[in-house]
Amino acid sequence: MSKIVTFGEIMLRISPEDGYRLFTDGRARLCYGGSEANVAALCAQLGVDAAFVTRLPDNAAGDGAVRHLRQLSVDVSGIVRGGDRLGVYYYEKGAGVRPAQCVYDRKGSSFACSSYEDYDVDGMFSHADHFHLSGITPALSGKMPDICLRLIREAKERGLTVSYDLNHRTKLWNACENRSVTETLLPYTDVFIANMYQCNEVLNLGVDTSSEERACIAVCREIMKRYGTKTVALTVRKTFSADRNGFYGMTFDKENALFSRKYETGIVDRVGSGDAFDAAFISSVIKGYDLQTAVEYGAAAAVLKHSIEGDVAYLTEDEIKNAANGGDGRVSR
Amino acid sequence: MSKIVTFGEIMLRISPEDGYRLFTDGRARLCYGGSEANVAALCAQLGVDAAFVTRLPDNAAGDGAVRHLRQLSVDVSGIVRGGDRLGVYYYEKGAGVRPAQCVYDRKGSSFACSSYEDYDVDGMFSHADHFHLSGITPALSGKMPDICLRLIREAKERGLTVSYDLNHRTKLWNACENRSVTETLLPYTDVFIANMYQCNEVLNLGVDTSSEERACIAVCREIMKRYGTKTVALTVRKTFSADRNGFYGMTFDKENALFSRKYETGIVDRVGSGDAFDAAFISSVIKGYDLQTAVEYGAAAAVLKHSIEGDVAYLTEDEIKNAANGGDGRVSR
Amino acid sequence: MSKIVTFGEIMLRISPEDGYRLFTDGRARLCYGGSEANVAALCAQLGVDAAFVTRLPDNAAGDGAVRHLRQLSVDVSGIVRGGDRLGVYYYEKGAGVRPAQCVYDRKGSSFACSSYEDYDVDGMFSHADHFHLSGITPALSGKMPDICLRLIREAKERGLTVSYDLNHRTKLWNACENRSVTETLLPYTDVFIANMYQCNEVLNLGVDTSSEERACIAVCREIMKRYGTKTVALTVRKTFSADRNGFYGMTFDKENALFSRKYETGIVDRVGSGDAFDAAFISSVIKGYDLQTAVEYGAAAAVLKHSIEGDVAYLTEDEIKNAANGGDGRVSR
Amino acid sequence: MSKIVTFGEIMLRISPEDGYRLFTDGRARLCYGGSEANVAALCAQLGVDAAFVTRLPDNAAGDGAVRHLRQLSVDVSGIVRGGDRLGVYYYEKGAGVRPAQCVYDRKGSSFACSSYEDYDVDGMFSHADHFHLSGITPALSGKMPDICLRLIREAKERGLTVSYDLNHRTKLWNACENRSVTETLLPYTDVFIANMYQCNEVLNLGVDTSSEERACIAVCREIMKRYGTKTVALTVRKTFSADRNGFYGMTFDKENALFSRKYETGIVDRVGSGDAFDAAFISSVIKGYDLQTAVEYGAAAAVLKHSIEGDVAYLTEDEIKNAANGGDGRVSR
Amino acid sequence: MSKIVTFGEIMLRISPEDGYRLFTDGRARLCYGGSEANVAALCAQLGVDAAFVTRLPDNAAGDGAVRHLRQLSVDVSGIVRGGDRLGVYYYEKGAGVRPAQCVYDRKGSSFACSSYEDYDVDGMFSHADHFHLSGITPALSGKMPDICLRLIREAKERGLTVSYDLNHRTKLWNACENRSVTETLLPYTDVFIANMYQCNEVLNLGVDTSSEERACIAVCREIMKRYGTKTVALTVRKTFSADRNGFYGMTFDKENALFSRKYETGIVDRVGSGDAFDAAFISSVIKGYDLQTAVEYGAAAAVLKHSIEGDVAYLTEDEIKNAANGGDGRVSR
Amino acid sequence: MSKIVTFGEIMLRISPEDGYRLFTDGRARLCYGGSEANVAALCAQLGVDAAFVTRLPDNAAGDGAVRHLRQLSVDVSGIVRGGDRLGVYYYEKGAGVRPAQCVYDRKGSSFACSSYEDYDVDGMFSHADHFHLSGITPALSGKMPDICLRLIREAKERGLTVSYDLNHRTKLWNACENRSVTETLLPYTDVFIANMYQCNEVLNLGVDTSSEERACIAVCREIMKRYGTKTVALTVRKTFSADRNGFYGMTFDKENALFSRKYETGIVDRVGSGDAFDAAFISSVIKGYDLQTAVEYGAAAAVLKHSIEGDVAYLTEDEIKNAANGGDGRVSR
Repeated sequence: MSKIVTFGEIMLRISPEDGYRLFTDGRARLCYGGSEANVAALCAQLGVDAAFVTRLPDNAAGDGAVRHLRQLSVDVSGIVRGGDRLGVYYYEKGAGVRPAQCVYDRKGSSFACSSYEDYDVDGMFSHADHFHLSGITPALSGKMPDICLRLIREAKERGLTVSYDLNHRTKLWNACENRSVTETLLPYTDVFIANMYQCNEVLNLGVDTSSEERACIAVCREIMKRYGTKTVALTVRKTFSADRNGFYGMTFDKENALFSRKYETGIVDRVGSGDAFDAAFISSVIKGYDLQTAVEYGAAAAVLKHSIEGDVAYLTEDEIKNAANGGDGRVSR
Repeated sequence: MSKIVTFGEIMLRISPEDGYRLFTDGRARLCYGGSEANVAALCAQLGVDAAFVTRLPDNAAGDGAVRHLRQLSVDVSGIVRGGDRLGVYYYEKGAGVRPAQCVYDRKGSSFACSSYEDYDVDGMFSHADHFHLSGITPALSGKMPDICLRLIREAKERGLTVSYDLNHRTKLWNACENRSVTETLLPYTDVFIANMYQCNEVLNLGVDTSSEERACIAVCREIMKRYGTKTVALTVRKTFSADRNGFYGMTFDKENALFSRKYETGIVDRVGSGDAFDAAFISSVIKGYDLQTAVEYGAAAAVLKHSIEGDVAYLTEDEIKNAANGGDGRVSR
Repeated sequence: MSKIVTFGEIMLRISPEDGYRLFTDGRARLCYGGSEANVAALCAQLGVDAAFVTRLPDNAAGDGAVRHLRQLSVDVSGIVRGGDRLGVYYYEKGAGVRPAQCVYDRKGSSFACSSYEDYDVDGMFSHADHFHLSGITPALSGKMPDICLRLIREAKERGLTVSYDLNHRTKLWNACENRSVTETLLPYTDVFIANMYQCNEVLNLGVDTSSEERACIAVCREIMKRYGTKTVALTVRKTFSADRNGFYGMTFDKENALFSRKYETGIVDRVGSGDAFDAAFISSVIKGYDLQTAVEYGAAAAVLKHSIEGDVAYLTEDEIKNAANGGDGRVSR
Repeated sequence: MSKIVTFGEIMLRISPEDGYRLFTDGRARLCYGGSEANVAALCAQLGVDAAFVTRLPDNAAGDGAVRHLRQLSVDVSGIVRGGDRLGVYYYEKGAGVRPAQCVYDRKGSSFACSSYEDYDVDGMFSHADHFHLSGITPALSGKMPDICLRLIREAKERGLTVSYDLNHRTKLWNACENRSVTETLLPYTDVFIANMYQCNEVLNLGVDTSSEERACIAVCREIMKRYGTKTVALTVRKTFSADRNGFYGMTFDKENALFSRKYETGIVDRVGSGDAFDAAFISSVIKGYDLQTAVEYGAAAAVLKHSIEGDVAYLTEDEIKNAANGGDGRVSR
Repeated sequence: MSKIVTFGEIMLRISPEDGYRLFTDGRARLCYGGSEANVAALCAQLGVDAAFVTRLPDNAAGDGAVRHLRQLSVDVSGIVRGGDRLGVYYYEKGAGVRPAQCVYDRKGSSFACSSYEDYDVDGMFSHADHFHLSGITPALSGKMPDICLRLIREAKERGLTVSYDLNHRTKLWNACENRSVTETLLPYTDVFIANMYQCNEVLNLGVDTSSEERACIAVCREIMKRYGTKTVALTVRKTFSADRNGFYGMTFDKENALFSRKYETGIVDRVGSGDAFDAAFISSVIKGYDLQTAVEYGAAAAVLKHSIEGDVAYLTEDEIKNAANGGDGRVSR
Repeated sequence: MSKIVTFGEIMLRISPEDGYRLFTDGRARLCYGGSEANVAALCAQLGVDAAFVTRLPDNAAGDGAVRHLRQLSVDVSGIVRGGDRLGVYYYEKGAGVRPAQCVYDRKGSSFACSSYEDYDVDGMFSHADHFHLSGITPALSGKMPDICLRLIREAKERGLTVSYDLNHRTKLWNACENRSVTETLLPYTDVFIANMYQCNEVLNLGVDTSSEERACIAVCREIMKRYGTKTVALTVRKTFSADRNGFYGMTFDKENALFSRKYETGIVDRVGSGDAFDAAFISSVIKGYDLQTAVEYGAAAAVLKHSIEGDVAYLTEDEIKNAANGGDGRVSR
């Protein structure tokens, strides 16, 4: 069986109940989340061996994160323990015209303060076929871009396929900072995934987006040309309101642009929907499905994630396939 | 005052909070539900004497079901106690493109294991005018089709009006099994209610559904013709998504097809909406309202049920009438 | 800094969890609310000194209301304690075609039983620039119209600006009763705010509402003409369903009708949205913003309130400005 | 089967979660309770037909109270609807040295404002053998002492047995007011139940309580002598702390003082424990059990109630018998 | 590292919130539990490789049980999927004199209906050193005694150490049935654990228990004599009330009776405390700790479990050691 | 009116529901707390003007802390905003032999990273009579001892009374580190409060504690002698178990040792009980009550706090007085 390794931060997420604003109520929902952890979690559920590598504090908060990952069948043997704290983020869902609000409290986390030497590179890549990380990880500290670059190189040297999701977070760094780092990583990246508009802006591609579908194609072509990336997948989100979004994905198979079904969906919790796209797209590639299937499954998983509370896409391949095939939310009984 | 008796199973329903997937969280909502129990509950709230007959285990779980029914003014004097267990169903609401999920755990329940001899037929039908059951009941065991048939015959012999909702459940039996049983019951059925598409398929009516409204009329006519049923009411549901449905009802008054107002509604909980249609339609018939009113009230009750958590339609006739008359969800204060 | 004083009743609100009907479940959410208290709360959050004057029982229920107001930076020094009870209202949110339901239990409350002499008029108006109340207050007892009239006169004599929201509540009095009282207050009112349709009906303006925007203009003009009111702001709500509303505001700047952006929004909790309009509109006026900004902020605050659980609009001016500028509910992270 | 009728007020009880103080948290638990309603509820569970008569507002709050009683098999046919409001009480459990806190908000309730003429005396006493009320009821309004007296007389004339629990509430009236009313009712009372210390004080019996058990005997004797009461039962509670109480009961069989087992118990919720004593004692008398059994069952039910959340003692006769026989809280599995 | 395999049933446990009686409230807490699963869970937390073997339905309920076990680092690779349902048990905690109540609904479960052939015996015992099961397992079906016997024999043949906890459940079988099965298993059992009183009764040892500590010694001796068991450990529980228990353990090292510290403890949740004793005692034996330490850790783990909600003892060896060394519940901060 | 200023850190506290272990459940309770903030909160409730000075991040988490303090009538005008984060602590209550567990995550908090220059010393001490802080504050960073020393000196120069609670936290520093700092502060301290055993150890007093009451006297005398402190108050806690503690206080009036009533109490939440002692003792001193009353009120407030969920002692002076006078937790109704 194939095995994917992902690398990044997992945090404790603290959210008020739906409709309450942050810090105005005495009750909270807790869950764990982080882009690369979420990717590993869905890959594991879709039947791909998945390991998540991070650094966690050696306390009850770190133990909880490990239990969370274990429950999801994620291999935690590469997780190192040390440092001061588990990163936290406070998340208030949006509704109507009120956008979701995210207060990061991840500074000084065990992961953000980690060094390349903390990780057992041989161990983490043994038996692995695929390495994945996202643009959040290099943004977390001054050392992280170098750690990411060295890990990606090590992965490539060992013959792994590397995937990278641009995942730009304006609260962590600006487009310019991101671009300079991403451009060092892209030469080693086999599969590059990004939100189309964000990608155009962060990588300064200069594509005219007045026609959205054409822009998708142009962005793909430009990335493949500039960086020699083999596989590029893009996602497009339309925010009708904080509780209603449109979503679709696209990729490029040699000369053909492949678009997924276009969805419009209500929102229970949109956090982690991009990660669900990554996991379903990459799992499909790992399993040898064709790219049309990969982008359909990616988009379906992303849209399904909008209906699920918390960071993790608890989904089976059957559920993803049904949604991709036009499932409409009918009760099965 | 008129009295309706319904017969079927009542189960404990176990649901996660909204947005959580089944068995991923340590909290649950509990309620009781079952098609015929739900029908009795709404009939009682609409001012029709209603009794529910079933078999429940003689333990705390059974006691809870009885308390639930009593609270709703349902006559529980015909309930017999015995057998091993209360049936359970785990229900996860759908959202967006993710369909609701229902895991039945009703095998071996006190009701499914009951025999005709367990019930006091004279007692249950004394002072009753109307007998109702749905297609879920005969699907629950090998003995059940015969129990249903004998009860319906006894009801007819005592001069009761008999209503039957097709209520096909693919997790319990297939269309063919259902048809062979339903066809033994239909000759004794005065009021037959069904989802139009389901009915066309289960009863193999062969109606062309390319024009929905015409199909409704054709299905009605075909049933009346084939089985001699006096009153047929159909429901039509459109599943735009797991949290947005369309709904309307229709019936046939002599030569005239009577359609209800057509609704589109958000969904809090759609379980029991068909039962609400049954209860409001049948109560209207029992009260002597005309069929146009009956189908309007049926559809309005069904649509209102979509806005209520749990299996039971907690509704008053005033609320149903207001919705039928075009109420739009304005606050009254 | 400018200071606004509002006068009215604050009640304990008791609500079931979403989707449950009133009094069918053993859990409730508690919050405090009341139109004028809500206005003070948002004004204080928007940086205007705000005091709320009322009468509360001298028990734990009253203490809770004071703590609630203090938390929101509302000056509570003018609140008097006495009387028997805190008013209560049971509130069930609507959904789909089921309207929200409000059961008032405010009879005999400390506020409703208060007299003019209970209040320290000099104290409450010292350092104040603005006095606000709504049509709910005079509806609460036989004495209240006179208390309101005397307070408004005292406010005018001290040079305060007076604002009044018509806020007609059919459960408290009828249009005719309201009109006779409102007409005594309007001569002293500088800023008059109302729902356009309600206003047309309660004040018997006779404006033709077949064209909604023209009706807004005509209603404004008629009020300014009849009562000499300097500033009139109107709100228009469309109830598509209990969980989807349209909303906009308008006002009149000399000769120009100024309309806000027109919104359509999902609904978490619409209680207090009118109060949010009042607070954001009046705060803008107090801060010297132009009327176009005032009506935009009023409408944006009102629409944002639809997304927030409870009576109080927990909002910052930045959030209101973003919504007014077309914010679409995108996550910021 | 014998039938008991009880008469009094039922209120909505609003409580914070354990450990939270009143009005400091946004969540509450709701239940219904009232001394005489609680007595009827336990009698019904113990197999005695039980009806509760009261006056409730004709709104959703009143409907909820009726559903609550129905669920418990209490006959609600004698309940009249009318008046303004359902009484409310806010209840905060005590813990350690912090006493429980009870904020009544029952003024102006439908029951407190009711008149003798509101009740159908013939209907309420038809088929009844026993009438019960407690000292809370006459304390609720100026009219209530007279209503109680007339009902008790009517009961006696119809041959019913009358029981009365002194149930003195210092927040409702003082000992002197209570005594003057109780002394008018005692001549018609067959079974009188009271807390020993309270009874000694309220009825001014002047018994020396330095020896508790002797005081019980003296109080019983004095009441039987003064008022000619046939059966007197007393309860004794020791408050070690807000979460640990001692409890026992005693009664008098001709010449013999009969004491129950003496209990010491932790406390989940002590509200309604006196009512549980009444119900179990009276049910035992109605069923013809001997007085030793009656006082044992009364005390056991009261102590068991301390372990149950809410006002109602959800208990079976088996559970009461086991506790009376020395059950020690071992798990049965 | 050593590895323990346990075999038995895991069920979904459904409990009301503390103080509520079963089936009287609409909220529940869900967790998974079962004696042998709980033993594996604590062994894994104490650093012993632990696998749990059972049969689970191939549905969402079964998936949830697997996730639960994975989270706890329990090896689930030997779990087979099939059959109809996950066993359920409804559990109401006791309080004061009210005993806990347990309603089993485990009939027809996937495990109870399993056959010897369902299990991969070679797989489950590969790399294992220790096999554990309890007296609940053979009680679950007619086939189970034989399945247990064959597995124990297979384990012995492969050189594993076998431990067995008597764990008599009167709701599953009587002492006589249990004895006849246990006596077939004891010859293969290396470590036998039991509640002293239960053991004396079920195995009909006839030891005089008037002196408890002497009885412990006599019971141990008798078992070692009769069945040749190498290691016997006994537990003694005193039920002061449903929320206060005493507890200690004892074992026998050659000629010396070794008693643990004697505890008295309040109770959050006593389910699984015997399993915690088993896990901590057996883990200690597996790790080569002396028997005095083993019995101290067993007793400390059991007592600590009383303080933890749910079936599983979430505990570290440090916490157990601290409690064994006289830890008194002081806050560490 | 007198005014007290306190200085320290306020954190977000995140706790699982009772009985759950940290990070094993998806629900949490949130509150704010910190020793000096808790002292200010109770002083304000007891009628002493109270201001709390700290540094909070300028985000929603900081806003929540401000709202929390405002609600409690604490003057927040001296709070400065800046820095990265609000400190967090995860708190799991203990039960039985399982101790409470506290995971601090306060490194890098806005307060811990603050400098002397961040605070407006003139502003914070204007109109103030009393300055209070505890030994937690200087332990929070390398700079803090100096900040504390300079503030205390400034306070003394302005004629304020200074109180200091030793409040040693072993997770923050060791006894030796604490002593060296405390000894710089004690010369400026008028009122020194400490746990007797902790004080003896941290300040290395060398008092023989074999007789507890004599040790109290000796510790007091030694402190007064060594440091010239005018008023010393000591607390003594006995930890019978994690849910049962003993507690009393003592102080010294000239030549007389004054002991409070000795309490034994169950525990809902013991966090903040020392702070409650401080607040009630200091408030009494500020109000001019005699020292016997001060120590009685201090001890009663501390014991009452054990019965209240969260960090804050929501208490009135009446409640404290009642407990001090021997109140036993009887319901008042």
